[in-house]
Amino acid sequence: MTAPTGNVHQVAVGDELLCGRTVDANSPWLQRRLAALGLRVRRVTVVGDAPDAVAAALDAAPPGTLVTVTGGLGPTPDDLTVEAVAAWAGLPLEHDRAVREHLRRRAAARGRPAGSHLERQARRPHGFTAVINPAGTAPALLGEARDRRLLLLPGPPAEIRALWPAVAERLRALWPDLPPRRVLLLRTAGLSEPALAQRTEPLRNTHPEWDWSWWLSRWGVDLQVTAPADADPDRWAALGRAAAAACGPYLYARDGDGLPAATLAALRERGWRAATAESCTGGLAAGALTEVPGSSAVVLGGVVSYADSVKTVVLGVPDAVLAAHGAVSRETALAMAAGARRLTGADVAVAITGIAGPGGATPGKPVGTTWLAVASPLGTWSLHRRFPAHRERNRRLAVAAALAGLRTHAATGGAPWAGWEEF
Amino acid sequence: MTAPTGNVHQVAVGDELLCGRTVDANSPWLQRRLAALGLRVRRVTVVGDAPDAVAAALDAAPPGTLVTVTGGLGPTPDDLTVEAVAAWAGLPLEHDRAVREHLRRRAAARGRPAGSHLERQARRPHGFTAVINPAGTAPALLGEARDRRLLLLPGPPAEIRALWPAVAERLRALWPDLPPRRVLLLRTAGLSEPALAQRTEPLRNTHPEWDWSWWLSRWGVDLQVTAPADADPDRWAALGRAAAAACGPYLYARDGDGLPAATLAALRERGWRAATAESCTGGLAAGALTEVPGSSAVVLGGVVSYADSVKTVVLGVPDAVLAAHGAVSRETALAMAAGARRLTGADVAVAITGIAGPGGATPGKPVGTTWLAVASPLGTWSLHRRFPAHRERNRRLAVAAALAGLRTHAATGGAPWAGWEEF
Repeated sequence: MTAPTGNVHQVAVGDELLCGRTVDANSPWLQRRLAALGLRVRRVTVVGDAPDAVAAALDAAPPGTLVTVTGGLGPTPDDLTVEAVAAWAGLPLEHDRAVREHLRRRAAARGRPAGSHLERQARRPHGFTAVINPAGTAPALLGEARDRRLLLLPGPPAEIRALWPAVAERLRALWPDLPPRRVLLLRTAGLSEPALAQRTEPLRNTHPEWDWSWWLSRWGVDLQVTAPADADPDRWAALGRAAAAACGPYLYARDGDGLPAATLAALRERGWRAATAESCTGGLAAGALTEVPGSSAVVLGGVVSYADSVKTVVLGVPDAVLAAHGAVSRETALAMAAGARRLTGADVAVAITGIAGPGGATPGKPVGTTWLAVASPLGTWSLHRRFPAHRERNRRLAVAAALAGLRTHAATGGAPWAGWEEF
Repeated sequence: MTAPTGNVHQVAVGDELLCGRTVDANSPWLQRRLAALGLRVRRVTVVGDAPDAVAAALDAAPPGTLVTVTGGLGPTPDDLTVEAVAAWAGLPLEHDRAVREHLRRRAAARGRPAGSHLERQARRPHGFTAVINPAGTAPALLGEARDRRLLLLPGPPAEIRALWPAVAERLRALWPDLPPRRVLLLRTAGLSEPALAQRTEPLRNTHPEWDWSWWLSRWGVDLQVTAPADADPDRWAALGRAAAAACGPYLYARDGDGLPAATLAALRERGWRAATAESCTGGLAAGALTEVPGSSAVVLGGVVSYADSVKTVVLGVPDAVLAAHGAVSRETALAMAAGARRLTGADVAVAITGIAGPGGATPGKPVGTTWLAVASPLGTWSLHRRFPAHRERNRRLAVAAALAGLRTHAATGGAPWAGWEEF
């Protein structure tokens, strides 16, 4: 086999990816995981459910490349990836006994007959290795053919996520020139992409030999650094400390957990029950907190006080506060947080009031102007922001700032947004 | 030039698309628009900001293909698409006077100097046509080279959307073999993808010569049919009626408007102000309604009554109702809707209470069990669902059913979910 290049071509298979029906979110997700293995993606090709198109995409990958193929592993006749790869590779299809046995047991446990579609899903090209799918029927398949390494994965994102830990382990076992790598993942909220890049630039310059990448998450910006496993442990540990310091008070997690899960974990740890009071975000902060299974043990609920009348009647914001300072003000945010706490009996409440845009600006309060507040047994705090984006993103940024403040306050007992730069 | 095939290859350019930083959502969006022009996408290739990689992707498109290239048209040195295409085509780069003039005026209006980066963005390959970008600086470029038709678009999704109407018009003017087509777009909520396919299958069988496509939207399933402009007007009109009838009570819009906008329009038309009461959806219904600019004229607010204590204390759901029927019941949903109406003074309120999962199931109430209710001056109604998916999707489906019911009730004055099948 040609020496492996560390380069990856991705092939996404499915007619639904060519007619506007489905966005290929699998490829970017895999790109981050492959980076943690020291691999770089050079090209993604999206083709329909057609063996010729799959073969052409495989041909386009230079020898020594790892080719990932996602999709087309399902049980229906239009799922042709396994046949297409076997035909391209010139390898016969065989049944994998372990997969067949697993699929039969799975069907039996669900009271379903083990039909021929299950037999179909137990096939693999001769010499390929199968990894059993804990979240579906189609296994992942790994093998070599025509000077390329091949990794076949099913299309449903949840199945890829469930398969990945075992697949990554098998990749390393099968191809030991993929050495284990150290991975540092830092998740931040409240910083823009350029701001995070600027904060971490000195570190990148002192460690140019390690791989740096970052991307926008739902809640902010994530930073990932990977290094060979034999990287100097002291330097690596120092980098971890320095990178965390560079992220500063915006760092909320060091693993795959999203901001809602991190916020709930901090609240649970402190034994607090939480409530929300939202104006411009219209319920999205409560919606984010409750996306985590089990959040009912921590989240009592909240009020969407979009109209001023709801702020006064439901949350008890004094008319005088609204009249003197306006709905988008420190005073109103603090009164909303206090009102949500009082109304629901929560230990801690977070409030958001702002001008999401495009309308609603007033003199001195441009679009994006937002006030946040936290009230808890330890005190009250507020934060002023002027978010620079359009309505949808301004609301997302406000929710992220609210949850990040709630998390920090529950985790430290200190000010929710201690150290956040004014903007 | 080789006869045009009606086939499209898409090329998405950008390093950020290969390292997990950004999902290529432009290609699927364009696929739907291209279908309305009678064009079919056969392949998408994602490459980095490298002229060789762009050239290889162009080479892979057979003669007669239309190749769309998105991204890499920005002002910075790593934006190489125009140079790469010109070099591949063997065409010199020229300045487009109209674009240059437009960019200078744009810069002047913003009080910025017209720097060399603007000159850079006014370039086009010799013979190409430029379409001025109303939402950014990089124009769209159209032309022919080496037996392919080429359409270059900037990468930011908002710019592509803003450019598209003028680009589609120019495409037709430049390449008159792309005849205008009739387009029917029907948007539904409350139906699964297979259910919509099944309802419309008889129609597809009677009109196999027209192009049918459908996709999952945020709120349900959209159906698109396109036909040549010279299709028989009576048959086309009959198809429109029959397709709408096949969508039945699940149809909420016939254009690009999403469900929140359609719901707000119906409420505004009736002169009603609305409120929400949400349990399992945790604020997402209010969050969806308030994503539309100007929603403050219609939405008063709502209550997230995640805990039972908030249902009783804030919404006034009687303890006896919770004790007798449980939090997930018709009676609780109706009491929540009534409570939200009373509390906020809204004309109409919608309530959602359910078991989103994965935990929370009780005997007789499996995961996915959800009750919705609407209360208005015209009466009260409820709907039972058992959503079949995972937590995140169950919550999304519940929000869609709530908004769809609210819209229908405001639009017709009748039952919110009249004609919805039980499941």
